[in-house]
Amino acid sequence: MTFFTHPLDHRTALHLVAVEDAEELAEVLNANRERIGTWEDWAREPQPLERQREFLRGQLQKFVGGTSLPCFIKVDGRLAGSIELRQVSAGDRVSEIGYWVSAEFEGQGLVRRACEAFIAHAFGPLERLRVELQIAADNERSCGLAERLGFTEEGTRRSAMVVGDRRHDLVWYGLLASEWRG
Amino acid sequence: MTFFTHPLDHRTALHLVAVEDAEELAEVLNANRERIGTWEDWAREPQPLERQREFLRGQLQKFVGGTSLPCFIKVDGRLAGSIELRQVSAGDRVSEIGYWVSAEFEGQGLVRRACEAFIAHAFGPLERLRVELQIAADNERSCGLAERLGFTEEGTRRSAMVVGDRRHDLVWYGLLASEWRG
Amino acid sequence: MTFFTHPLDHRTALHLVAVEDAEELAEVLNANRERIGTWEDWAREPQPLERQREFLRGQLQKFVGGTSLPCFIKVDGRLAGSIELRQVSAGDRVSEIGYWVSAEFEGQGLVRRACEAFIAHAFGPLERLRVELQIAADNERSCGLAERLGFTEEGTRRSAMVVGDRRHDLVWYGLLASEWRG
Amino acid sequence: MTFFTHPLDHRTALHLVAVEDAEELAEVLNANRERIGTWEDWAREPQPLERQREFLRGQLQKFVGGTSLPCFIKVDGRLAGSIELRQVSAGDRVSEIGYWVSAEFEGQGLVRRACEAFIAHAFGPLERLRVELQIAADNERSCGLAERLGFTEEGTRRSAMVVGDRRHDLVWYGLLASEWRG
Amino acid sequence: MTFFTHPLDHRTALHLVAVEDAEELAEVLNANRERIGTWEDWAREPQPLERQREFLRGQLQKFVGGTSLPCFIKVDGRLAGSIELRQVSAGDRVSEIGYWVSAEFEGQGLVRRACEAFIAHAFGPLERLRVELQIAADNERSCGLAERLGFTEEGTRRSAMVVGDRRHDLVWYGLLASEWRG
Amino acid sequence: MTFFTHPLDHRTALHLVAVEDAEELAEVLNANRERIGTWEDWAREPQPLERQREFLRGQLQKFVGGTSLPCFIKVDGRLAGSIELRQVSAGDRVSEIGYWVSAEFEGQGLVRRACEAFIAHAFGPLERLRVELQIAADNERSCGLAERLGFTEEGTRRSAMVVGDRRHDLVWYGLLASEWRG
Repeated sequence: MTFFTHPLDHRTALHLVAVEDAEELAEVLNANRERIGTWEDWAREPQPLERQREFLRGQLQKFVGGTSLPCFIKVDGRLAGSIELRQVSAGDRVSEIGYWVSAEFEGQGLVRRACEAFIAHAFGPLERLRVELQIAADNERSCGLAERLGFTEEGTRRSAMVVGDRRHDLVWYGLLASEWRG
Repeated sequence: MTFFTHPLDHRTALHLVAVEDAEELAEVLNANRERIGTWEDWAREPQPLERQREFLRGQLQKFVGGTSLPCFIKVDGRLAGSIELRQVSAGDRVSEIGYWVSAEFEGQGLVRRACEAFIAHAFGPLERLRVELQIAADNERSCGLAERLGFTEEGTRRSAMVVGDRRHDLVWYGLLASEWRG
Repeated sequence: MTFFTHPLDHRTALHLVAVEDAEELAEVLNANRERIGTWEDWAREPQPLERQREFLRGQLQKFVGGTSLPCFIKVDGRLAGSIELRQVSAGDRVSEIGYWVSAEFEGQGLVRRACEAFIAHAFGPLERLRVELQIAADNERSCGLAERLGFTEEGTRRSAMVVGDRRHDLVWYGLLASEWRG
Repeated sequence: MTFFTHPLDHRTALHLVAVEDAEELAEVLNANRERIGTWEDWAREPQPLERQREFLRGQLQKFVGGTSLPCFIKVDGRLAGSIELRQVSAGDRVSEIGYWVSAEFEGQGLVRRACEAFIAHAFGPLERLRVELQIAADNERSCGLAERLGFTEEGTRRSAMVVGDRRHDLVWYGLLASEWRG
Repeated sequence: MTFFTHPLDHRTALHLVAVEDAEELAEVLNANRERIGTWEDWAREPQPLERQREFLRGQLQKFVGGTSLPCFIKVDGRLAGSIELRQVSAGDRVSEIGYWVSAEFEGQGLVRRACEAFIAHAFGPLERLRVELQIAADNERSCGLAERLGFTEEGTRRSAMVVGDRRHDLVWYGLLASEWRG
Repeated sequence: MTFFTHPLDHRTALHLVAVEDAEELAEVLNANRERIGTWEDWAREPQPLERQREFLRGQLQKFVGGTSLPCFIKVDGRLAGSIELRQVSAGDRVSEIGYWVSAEFEGQGLVRRACEAFIAHAFGPLERLRVELQIAADNERSCGLAERLGFTEEGTRRSAMVVGDRRHDLVWYGLLASEWRG
């Protein structure tokens, strides 16, 4: 339904988020509450439609302000996940990537390919010099992905994140423009 | 430089406008001042960079608000023209198209293909029932295009537009969803 | 209750709309739902008080911004109808008139006299060069009024308006400053 | 040039202020700088056009918000003075009047008649229970007017106002709805 | 809980208001409804938590804008009362003090000491030339305090305040910088 | 000049920033340009007064919004340095401290004592569970302070900060509520 996309292959594309996606987003989040809610505190509660609309409006405002690239990953037009390139510090030319993918579309390399597109865009047109990921220390799948993408583990912010009643350590990954294979 | 596009062919795409386009936009407008200024009053003055930035920010706000689809037509990444799908009346499900193209890229069918993409999007996902064009009565080239696209001439708003010190009649063209060949 | 008016005769005046009018406005609209709702889609639903307040606040903001002259027609202080002079395009010096009148006050020439006051103000102090009306093609009474006021029928935007589940053609009328008898 | 007025007689009316009045306002203020600047500190400086525009926009915003009735007194369409009915306290139903008049139109009873119209509106449709004036103790002309209008002198705020390098005492006048002759 | 204070003695301090105070504020106001509601109309209604939050946010905005110094008087960290230094007129260098204290903490000189701190700050760093109090004529306790603080009774605004269904006269007190014993 | 403070000793206090501090701030920053500009990119340029005012207004807005505690460290009323407690993530209950001190006041333990006051406030009334510092890897003085305060070095974000034309690694320090000696 979005007019603008960034294609990853003939079936998969990154779509700029749209307020009209709110319904499908709420549906996917509610169906994946337990799964996404393992690593994202906000995802543990039911996601009413109006909150999604407000969230998407906020994301679009950040896009317009130039501080975020908020995308949905869609496969054959269906919402499979979300990925965002956030500006951490404009002057320092550092950006951060955050993402989630629904259970149904896991294991197909969607996030990896989306990250590669973001990294290319960050080190290319956006002229960033450093891209970051923060991943819960016990999220092995995501930590593995960070390493396959070429990120370096740089440290662990102890007890930095809460999900439900558990606090998690966050591993900090960094990738420098000079390290990126292009 | 834009991350999101709507491809028309392997060299040409519609790009969501971006504030970073301001410099190239100012350049193209200043180079085409006489040409575009024949039909657009605002285009007759020199276009300082800051005004372009503000204009583009305004366009993006309308995009986020869902009342406009503001695009640049780019060929091999170069800004060739501008095209916008504006909501005329949400309740009535009517939209309007406006456009210009630089001298260098005229006569290549860019505007026609961009209009076709907009019409497909308007009558498809946007569920509009009517698309409109308003063209100066003495702009023969544009009037010819409207007719080739299947629009019907519906009337003439006499003396409705000013460009410099001349007032122009505006021809009103309409295309209904039921008339569109899909 | 309004302090400022534009008198039409000793019993009738145009009043700048006020938020305090919301109650009487809701009452009149609810009593005329079928009648006004023949030509105005928004008028078909019940009109809660809070929506009227918001609407009037919005109208006053446009007045302050200089893009609208939103009035109530009052007879002996009672709300008989509404008339608005909207700026269509500042640079082109074109304005548009829209109006409705309640059943009780129909057939007394209120709208005609209010239009004449607006036209005099538009071509006088506001220095407009063109005033427009858009009227549903099957609204014979209003079409007749446009002609009696000296407007020229300039065309028909086919299927441009929806009211309930019916779409209407809209006739476009124009009056130029040079045609106005002053 | 204003569409809405409150007539005082066949030549004189109160006009809702308009941004278009800025030029004439600046002219009158600059011509009366010494005179008005005897009692109003802001009037002692030259009044650039842009500041007047901003001031008038601010006044209209207060009007739309319902906390002020900002008027120009016009004689034969010429700006003769300014008068404002300000809400002091909505819950307490108290309003205050402030005014100035240009040298050319002094001594014609303009301010008195404008005050009477405001008082009638305040105690009538606005349902205020008290109207106030604050006047510099050494402004004999204005103090005399307050008494002729039926106000009671209620006290003196010592050293409450600065004009240039002199501080003035302010006399407080009050008129109750029950005292007003209607 | 506030980080910033202005100590009056080892147990008592003025605290900049904070949104987190809303709960305790609502509690104190509800417990003192009759008492504070004798002189303050707003205090007569039950005070829901959300309204207190909004009120405190508004107070902080005025503080940031430099037009108010809104404090809570706290004794051993408990909310005992409220005191505010409001700018009446920046150009005239006049400020006004308003306050209330809960029943439990009355008669301990809290308000007197808080007023003295405000007066010192107003005539000192803020360089005000006049500080004002307005007190209901029948509030003998507060009128006595004004006199002990050295204020001069300057007049009475008749019928200027409503509390419930009774209107009160307001006595106007003024203290000049030159009168203050420093 | 600030009314509210958080005393550290009889000569030293944390003051909530105020717009009136802009002049002294600009002076101190300009005098310490080289020194502070070794670790803070923004400090390398001359600091015009108007930019400081805007910056301080922004800081106060964050304070009002509850996401920052922006302070000046003042010794005998003179601006000696700046320290801020920033909310990193409300839900995760993590805050971060940032600071600088002028050359004249270095080596007196001001920053250490200010940090201790912030840490006590963060783990006390603010109920944070983690406080962070980020320090350039080659800023030995600051790294030493972090360790003396009991922070743990948790990792190094390589090439994460730019100052002038040099990029620096940033060391990440964390202190947990459970580690704090209270």
